[in-house]
Amino acid sequence: WKGLKLKVSEFAKKVWRIGADDPRRAMHGIKVGLALSLVSLFYYTRPLYDGVGGTAMWAIMTVVVIFDYSVGGSLYKGFNRIVATSTGGALALGIHFFADKLGGTFEPLVLGTSLFLLASAATFSRFLPIVKARFDYGITIFILTFSLVSVSGYRVDKIVTVAEERVSTIGIGVSICFLVSIFICPVWAGGDLHLLITKNMEKLAHSLEGCVGGYFDANESNSASHQKWQGYKCVLNSKASEDSLANLATWEPAHGNFGFRHPWKQYLKVGAAMRYCAYCIEALNGCINSDVEAPKHIKKHLSEVFMKVSSEASKVLKESTSSVSVMTKSPCVDLLIGEMNIAVEELHSAMRTLPDAIATSSSPTVSFVETLPLITIASLLIEISTRVEAIVDSVEELAN
Amino acid sequence: WKGLKLKVSEFAKKVWRIGADDPRRAMHGIKVGLALSLVSLFYYTRPLYDGVGGTAMWAIMTVVVIFDYSVGGSLYKGFNRIVATSTGGALALGIHFFADKLGGTFEPLVLGTSLFLLASAATFSRFLPIVKARFDYGITIFILTFSLVSVSGYRVDKIVTVAEERVSTIGIGVSICFLVSIFICPVWAGGDLHLLITKNMEKLAHSLEGCVGGYFDANESNSASHQKWQGYKCVLNSKASEDSLANLATWEPAHGNFGFRHPWKQYLKVGAAMRYCAYCIEALNGCINSDVEAPKHIKKHLSEVFMKVSSEASKVLKESTSSVSVMTKSPCVDLLIGEMNIAVEELHSAMRTLPDAIATSSSPTVSFVETLPLITIASLLIEISTRVEAIVDSVEELAN
Repeated sequence: WKGLKLKVSEFAKKVWRIGADDPRRAMHGIKVGLALSLVSLFYYTRPLYDGVGGTAMWAIMTVVVIFDYSVGGSLYKGFNRIVATSTGGALALGIHFFADKLGGTFEPLVLGTSLFLLASAATFSRFLPIVKARFDYGITIFILTFSLVSVSGYRVDKIVTVAEERVSTIGIGVSICFLVSIFICPVWAGGDLHLLITKNMEKLAHSLEGCVGGYFDANESNSASHQKWQGYKCVLNSKASEDSLANLATWEPAHGNFGFRHPWKQYLKVGAAMRYCAYCIEALNGCINSDVEAPKHIKKHLSEVFMKVSSEASKVLKESTSSVSVMTKSPCVDLLIGEMNIAVEELHSAMRTLPDAIATSSSPTVSFVETLPLITIASLLIEISTRVEAIVDSVEELAN
Repeated sequence: WKGLKLKVSEFAKKVWRIGADDPRRAMHGIKVGLALSLVSLFYYTRPLYDGVGGTAMWAIMTVVVIFDYSVGGSLYKGFNRIVATSTGGALALGIHFFADKLGGTFEPLVLGTSLFLLASAATFSRFLPIVKARFDYGITIFILTFSLVSVSGYRVDKIVTVAEERVSTIGIGVSICFLVSIFICPVWAGGDLHLLITKNMEKLAHSLEGCVGGYFDANESNSASHQKWQGYKCVLNSKASEDSLANLATWEPAHGNFGFRHPWKQYLKVGAAMRYCAYCIEALNGCINSDVEAPKHIKKHLSEVFMKVSSEASKVLKESTSSVSVMTKSPCVDLLIGEMNIAVEELHSAMRTLPDAIATSSSPTVSFVETLPLITIASLLIEISTRVEAIVDSVEELAN
């Protein structure tokens, strides 16, 4: 019993944390409940109400399947549903009319063949990347509407009445969804994407500084601060969410600081540049955690310049972050890049004098091999600095 | 007109290539058409057929929304749909019955409140990772069924009839889906995952060999072979597809060489180990493409041992690939790892003699800085070799 109690309380804590981490999630649940209550109230109070088999069903169904966490998601599904229902229905109606004219044994033949061909072609079209990204849901609804209308036993004039009724019902469902989604605590996919990119860039800056700083600072307690530097791992794995957010963001109207044709695609480029930099930080981290311990005095010889490069690069990233935040080109980023490049030059010259430092070593045991990790870290820092510049370039393109 | 013609023909070529690249895609389209035709035929020929408003609708709808590209996807959605429809319907029925007993003004109040609360809670539950991964579709259907039944104007006994009818219809739709999906050219998510991992490992081996080989082989034509080494980039970006395939694979029954409880999660670990190695190859590639040109004779001094390490590591990966393919522990992989480690040792000693090689250089212009890229490549190769061993470990765990 105690075990069960513990499990339940742990589960409850987990659930609570999910809601507390992002209260918009709890709000989303409430919004769905509200939209559903609104649509059922709308139909409950109508004198024409005819139960679950009738039109009310289509409005409820629309709300349930369309309502998405982000405004972009709701709009995407809503538009897809309306367009696909209309085109699928109209096409089926046309074929039905044509088959009716032929009459007799031809009718089921024509209907069956057209159903088979259209369903196959529409399903196949999903493998086109553009269709998959923007109309996946629409294809489902298109096939659904087409098959429902085309296999219906009704005559053409009755279908027209049913279709009119259904389109208006779906329209009501979609409208309620849009209203609730946009006007009650809206969650904008575009805003989320913007925030994700900004946060990731911040994490990258912290990781870069923390990794190198932790390597040279022996006093640092390893476990707690180690966690902090791992932020770049979020950058490594965020491609999928960036892609989906950017896709949904294109469906959203102007909101907040984002205009109608905000360059969402450019965010993906910034994200790709950040990932490109994160790969290098990953390799750097591998080097830092390798077993070979560099001799202390060589380490000291280089520590200052290493720290300088990493902190300058980190400063550039932080400046870029605020540049993305406020969506304008930062005036001092060029200055910071200049300082970063000066630090890189200093690193170069420190490397040039490294053989002398090894030679003048007091202990004769210092071998060249022991300095390998340091040299690698230096190279990676130089590579990282060029990749940081690439990030700044893509951010500037975004700012324009 | 000519422009339009060109565009159309280009589009047609693109479509053709999508089908030709993987004929299973075209087959998937045909399968959907077939399943839809079967289900409509089933209802068309029944004497009880009552048109689009009736039960046939639910069977068609089931086929359209459930049929997925992979068997796992169809099974996932099918089971979710059946379970969610039953539980949602039963729950709504219970609440309906309870509200009926209370009667009068309480009835709509109880129904409305329960609808709001359940829809909110169910929507919120989607943010739990386990629910999101395994029951996302089921939650939609649960809310849908619950709201349809709960707002229906019918009395309880009529609802029971409707529910019975609907469950049997959905059952028929689901069965037709499963049959077509499993018995006609099945696409197994598990098999696809297996293939993806094997192919990615092969690409990793080719990239590793190609990158280092191309660096030392000046005669190599850059453009064509350069493409070939970029295979590791697929590994970098395949996390999302691996996750989704592994998730769908757990729904699939035993098939081919895969038992019922095949350790699909382990494939994700292998994938993660491969990505971990690919990050290093990415950094290596960055180094190789850097502008600093290493002095020729130093390059020559190291080329043999570099090539040896990369080709040994590549051999280990290839052996691992075939070990994954046949799903047994390879007997000679330990031997190959031993050889790789010998090559790494040789690299170590070559690095040890590097200062002498620089010192004895005939041209006095060779500076230490110019050898930096070579040293970095050496370090990265050593790091890569340890990460390759990690891949082999995870593959062995899979083989057990």
